[in-house]
Amino acid sequence: MTSRCGVCCFNEARRVAIFGGTHGNEMSGIMLVNMWLKNGAEIQRSGVMTKPFITNPRAVEKCTRYVDTDLNRAFTPENLSAPSADELPYEVRRAQEINKTFGPKGSADAYDVIFDLHNTTSNMGSTLILESSTDHFTLQMVHYIKKAIAPASCPVLLNEHPLLKYSTSRSVAKHPIGLEVGPQPQGVLRSNIFESMRVIMKHALDFIELFNNGVEFPPCSVDVFKVQERMDYPRDTNGNITAMVHPDLQDCDWEPLNPGDPMFQTFDGRTIPYEGPSPVYPTFINEAAYYEKQQAFVTTRRETLAAQAISKIEQ
Amino acid sequence: MTSRCGVCCFNEARRVAIFGGTHGNEMSGIMLVNMWLKNGAEIQRSGVMTKPFITNPRAVEKCTRYVDTDLNRAFTPENLSAPSADELPYEVRRAQEINKTFGPKGSADAYDVIFDLHNTTSNMGSTLILESSTDHFTLQMVHYIKKAIAPASCPVLLNEHPLLKYSTSRSVAKHPIGLEVGPQPQGVLRSNIFESMRVIMKHALDFIELFNNGVEFPPCSVDVFKVQERMDYPRDTNGNITAMVHPDLQDCDWEPLNPGDPMFQTFDGRTIPYEGPSPVYPTFINEAAYYEKQQAFVTTRRETLAAQAISKIEQ
Repeated sequence: MTSRCGVCCFNEARRVAIFGGTHGNEMSGIMLVNMWLKNGAEIQRSGVMTKPFITNPRAVEKCTRYVDTDLNRAFTPENLSAPSADELPYEVRRAQEINKTFGPKGSADAYDVIFDLHNTTSNMGSTLILESSTDHFTLQMVHYIKKAIAPASCPVLLNEHPLLKYSTSRSVAKHPIGLEVGPQPQGVLRSNIFESMRVIMKHALDFIELFNNGVEFPPCSVDVFKVQERMDYPRDTNGNITAMVHPDLQDCDWEPLNPGDPMFQTFDGRTIPYEGPSPVYPTFINEAAYYEKQQAFVTTRRETLAAQAISKIEQ
Repeated sequence: MTSRCGVCCFNEARRVAIFGGTHGNEMSGIMLVNMWLKNGAEIQRSGVMTKPFITNPRAVEKCTRYVDTDLNRAFTPENLSAPSADELPYEVRRAQEINKTFGPKGSADAYDVIFDLHNTTSNMGSTLILESSTDHFTLQMVHYIKKAIAPASCPVLLNEHPLLKYSTSRSVAKHPIGLEVGPQPQGVLRSNIFESMRVIMKHALDFIELFNNGVEFPPCSVDVFKVQERMDYPRDTNGNITAMVHPDLQDCDWEPLNPGDPMFQTFDGRTIPYEGPSPVYPTFINEAAYYEKQQAFVTTRRETLAAQAISKIEQ
């Protein structure tokens, strides 16, 4: 990236990957990627090599989130630099392979863009997930997508939290972007969720084509929900949960949770209110995969980010 | 059972079991049973010994449907009579243990009633599942429950199909009854589904108490949906699905599917209509666990069963 007169200049995004099956029971991305592997016409754009890719084939085969460990947490420097060995967890070996093919992470050789397709059991709609508030390329992309699908909603989740950010599969790319669409149960393929994901990928690839063709995108602002805090279920001394997400909170992703609002309902019917000092915007509410991660939901705050103008570097 | 003047007489139902965790990722029954194991006050009734029981603890531990094979298909005569051996699949060994404790199946020593608590990803609401159209005790029980929770709905699924009926965990009892509540994703606990299941169990146990106390239940009729046919997804020659449940059918469990109505949507957007000769009532639509069983939904027909009067045998 270079900068001239307030315009961020990036190389053309010639190498793009679309990951499905990072979690082997999140069906929309798996089915889309498998479909595109057979016939990629709808993801082809002039001047772009777009590679659909199943990241965790063993987990897909078993229709489970992962085999040994969560692939979408496995792209740490330690894992990626560990000496290759058969004794490593399957997903760590897989992360190393993916890093070789699409990275190396942080290097000039890395893919330009990786989209990673996910589903959630939470009522999050079509959510774009960013890992950086200063990557003006992805900020401009999500701005483009949000405009393209309006009046449908497309919330943007920014995970830059020093402790809660994790080492995703897509982090191998120069410009990583997650797509999280729900609600959809694990192991289920719903046509509405499948089509929502497909439409967003269409607009994302259109954006890349326009950018590569020399379109300059002017400065803009992007409303995001920034990750603040992980909220766990109430648990007993054995770690078993003792309450459920309150019915007033269930399915209310992205809506404000105010101090005093119901948050959990204990099995004996008692309400536990939210006691934070100010309103937050919960999301990933009651996601199946996060019980084991001690997370009932994550709180966010609304922020507006300034995206600088972007343009391609003229060769 | 004996019969006098058109009244079916049964022994008091003194031994009742409530099974949770027959499928280890169906959370409502697991959490209810675990709760009742700690404090069974709400399932106690005078003159009834009610035993809450986790049927597949290893699957519950892993939050997976099963470990080796589906426990809720494992109660076949072959499995139950197989010589005990460590090499048997875990669930077959477990079925033998359960049969010893709560059966033997088909014997006078078997438990009187077993409730088996299940969740589904399908939009089935609170469904009671019967295995026999001539068990007047369970027919009277479901009639009682339906009246008790009205105007809320409580469909009754009758699975007497010669090929599609399977060997359930609850089939060990003299009077087996399944409770299937959804929609709820696997691995998720939703407070509304939890409470629906809990309320039905309350009424079911109330019925048993009334019966044991000598209340005679007069003849009645019970509307049921009788299992007809398993409908699989369209698949390619490798067995991969090539279409999804059509959005017009998704979540429409128990609603009529007429000849010509949309049934599936292929990945390229083509609609596949239902081509049967007459309307059917689909259910278990897009249940996560049934992709591997080659079932997109099951068709049913509406029938009205005549339940005879029942009374307890005076000792």
